[in-house]
Amino acid sequence: MDHLYLQVADRIQAMIEKEVIRIGDKLPSVRSLSKEQGISMSTVFQAYYHLESKGYIEPRPKSGYYVKFSPRRLPEMPKICRPVKKASEVNVSEMITEVFYHMSPDDVLRFSLAAPPDELLPSARLSKSLIQAMRALPAGGVHYDNLQGFIPLRRQIARMYMQGGSPVTEDDIITTTGCMDALTLCLSAATQPGDVIALESPAYCGTFQLAQSLGLKVLEIPTNPVCGVDLEYLDKAIPKFRIKACVFVTNFNNPLGACMPDKNKQELVKLMNKYDIPLIEDDIYADTYFGKLRPSSCKQYDRNGNVLLCNSFSKSLAPGYRVGWTMPGKYKEKVLRLKLNHTVASATLPQAAIAHFLENGRYEHHMRNLRKILHTQCLRYQQAIAEYFPEDTCVTRPQGGYVLWLELNQAINTVELYEQALKRKISFAPGRIFSLQDRYNNCLRISHGNPWSKRVEDGLKTIGKLAHQMI
Amino acid sequence: MDHLYLQVADRIQAMIEKEVIRIGDKLPSVRSLSKEQGISMSTVFQAYYHLESKGYIEPRPKSGYYVKFSPRRLPEMPKICRPVKKASEVNVSEMITEVFYHMSPDDVLRFSLAAPPDELLPSARLSKSLIQAMRALPAGGVHYDNLQGFIPLRRQIARMYMQGGSPVTEDDIITTTGCMDALTLCLSAATQPGDVIALESPAYCGTFQLAQSLGLKVLEIPTNPVCGVDLEYLDKAIPKFRIKACVFVTNFNNPLGACMPDKNKQELVKLMNKYDIPLIEDDIYADTYFGKLRPSSCKQYDRNGNVLLCNSFSKSLAPGYRVGWTMPGKYKEKVLRLKLNHTVASATLPQAAIAHFLENGRYEHHMRNLRKILHTQCLRYQQAIAEYFPEDTCVTRPQGGYVLWLELNQAINTVELYEQALKRKISFAPGRIFSLQDRYNNCLRISHGNPWSKRVEDGLKTIGKLAHQMI
Repeated sequence: MDHLYLQVADRIQAMIEKEVIRIGDKLPSVRSLSKEQGISMSTVFQAYYHLESKGYIEPRPKSGYYVKFSPRRLPEMPKICRPVKKASEVNVSEMITEVFYHMSPDDVLRFSLAAPPDELLPSARLSKSLIQAMRALPAGGVHYDNLQGFIPLRRQIARMYMQGGSPVTEDDIITTTGCMDALTLCLSAATQPGDVIALESPAYCGTFQLAQSLGLKVLEIPTNPVCGVDLEYLDKAIPKFRIKACVFVTNFNNPLGACMPDKNKQELVKLMNKYDIPLIEDDIYADTYFGKLRPSSCKQYDRNGNVLLCNSFSKSLAPGYRVGWTMPGKYKEKVLRLKLNHTVASATLPQAAIAHFLENGRYEHHMRNLRKILHTQCLRYQQAIAEYFPEDTCVTRPQGGYVLWLELNQAINTVELYEQALKRKISFAPGRIFSLQDRYNNCLRISHGNPWSKRVEDGLKTIGKLAHQMI
Repeated sequence: MDHLYLQVADRIQAMIEKEVIRIGDKLPSVRSLSKEQGISMSTVFQAYYHLESKGYIEPRPKSGYYVKFSPRRLPEMPKICRPVKKASEVNVSEMITEVFYHMSPDDVLRFSLAAPPDELLPSARLSKSLIQAMRALPAGGVHYDNLQGFIPLRRQIARMYMQGGSPVTEDDIITTTGCMDALTLCLSAATQPGDVIALESPAYCGTFQLAQSLGLKVLEIPTNPVCGVDLEYLDKAIPKFRIKACVFVTNFNNPLGACMPDKNKQELVKLMNKYDIPLIEDDIYADTYFGKLRPSSCKQYDRNGNVLLCNSFSKSLAPGYRVGWTMPGKYKEKVLRLKLNHTVASATLPQAAIAHFLENGRYEHHMRNLRKILHTQCLRYQQAIAEYFPEDTCVTRPQGGYVLWLELNQAINTVELYEQALKRKISFAPGRIFSLQDRYNNCLRISHGNPWSKRVEDGLKTIGKLAHQMI
């Protein structure tokens, strides 16, 4: 049962969304609402604070609270891309390197990084966990870890999935050096150089680069910004293009933010079984859901071992710890062998620290907080984009994750916009780098991970203004 | 200038080696030597302790010191393998997995691991460095590290090489998740699937497995147990077999223990330049030299960027930290790109801890100790093998590193010997796994990393006895 203040807030939010009260309307004073509904004034205050943090209302000095949010101002969703004629050799532009690898200077306001900023991470408590775990380890963790990964950590990860209803044990899990390492191991295990793999379109540019370094060809699959990959198209494409593996982010994918409904996930697993090809499921954003429950993963519906799930703690706890994992299904022995060949074992201490953090119930506590903050920030960013960007800008409405995908007027080239913005010490990810085709030139990805501030608002305003000038 | 006791010890050692005094001879009493040479009794004691620790002499209760070591008892060196007719597809036997991957049970006496045991590592001081480094980092190191690697650590590594006379800067260095990761990145950067690479013979089995997972073919090069790869043969083999890269351990290689003389290293670099192919130089054992100075590496003679040096702290400080590095010469951009694709960045904290340890001068102090201990252990193990193994056993005499390579009577199959030994809870590495050819079946590798003890002596005695029974 929700807190009383949340019930009050939800009622007001519903009234705003249905436009019973509209942008600019004054809300009842705290005193009058308290009297009217027979609740304490502090409950009303809490409800208003909550709505303020979500960006629905705003206080005006010596006047009271006003509605700030209007559903009508929410922009359209971006369009779905057209299918391509053939799989592409990966020839990734220098642009990706430019955006991500030269992202060091600290004075740049970065909307380019789909990751949590330091201030949203529980660094002090994690440091404590590390020290305690180190003291408990023989020889302070200087020795090689178990090849498959630190056992207490694997146990904790298995428990996370058991809460989702799947019968997972520590034996199903292999830890890795972050999620990219998990993807590398799984893709290496499941494909041969020259194979065609299917990715979403648009897709995370790091996956293109990985495919390139493994000598793979890529077919981009049309993807809906709400429900993910077009399964009807995929069903035809697998035999036609001889697709040997799929790599999809099924929950809050990057950059679209799509979350496949359960039914689609089940359907996708059936397709994998029908053609007996593996699905490498990058589930790295699943835990950043804005709703009440963690979305399911395809892995939960996998009975044949065709799904290789990859994940990490980089979007939730500590990117710098480089702790990820995979549940590689029937590819387990192959993945283990590759891990042995390429890194021997994962670093012991970062794994032990996170295991300790989880064992002590600190993870769920932290995540509840983080999700709330991310949700609020996502709404604020959406509002600001609606306010400052050209009217015809389309924006996604993700229900989790770190990013918004924007489709701007066709006249706007976002690579040029990027260069203009960078001169003003602002960076984002231009749409072009999320495809191997010459497309998404008028799109861009904005991370809403940075806590809302005057600087952030000004940054978005600046990009919006530059976009206006380009039309 | 050496300590006085060392001078005394060196003189006695020389007399033993030249057989002026022989095995079983009684040494002068401490009092008489002190009088005779006009030195203090404590100096004589120190000299005797020193020789005892090196395995040259032994005390007998109420009697005095006796010569224990005889150069004549030192076994022959193993023979050099014959060249092969063609490069081999890598099809690594299950044996490697058996020996290394199933090595977990703690009650097995492991002569199979070429790594320092926990008790020889400075774990307490390293833990302190980690805590101090963590406190000094923004947000306790939860954020992504610099792609190229933790800058203060790269600076410290550069300093280590500068002491060797090379003009190295932090910009030449990329940190990695241990040495195998460095080798993986360098091999991936420098080769294409299907290429032929040259390895020493015998060679570290992990390198075969890595080559297999990258789709490479391997040509094994005859290798001398003292001075390394046969360069004359290599010069002909490169064009004949279209070798595209060499992967050599130039210092105290594994398993032979060979250390290439400076002249050979220079020659090898010239060969690389002549054919314009890369040398991936695995330098992981260089710092465990028994002599006075660190041996040079080929990298020092490399002016064209054809040498990609790989190394780590796994054999010196902390295998479980997984901190390695590469100096990839002209392949730097390619290696960086691969690192970005496969792991994004290395874990921050383990790098910061080791940087702190080095900055505070703790590394050299620790290594001076470790080298002394390893040297003594190496001599002890050699003595025990000479004593307990069949007369015709040949053994290497490495001047650094962790391993001895034994060539036994042709009648002995060391895979069978391994199985026999394992039943008695003793493991070692059978020779067969160090080649892709059907060779080294009568060879084995013994690690002398485990501190000398009754258990170790009994273990070697047992293997020796089993070997005797097989002839």
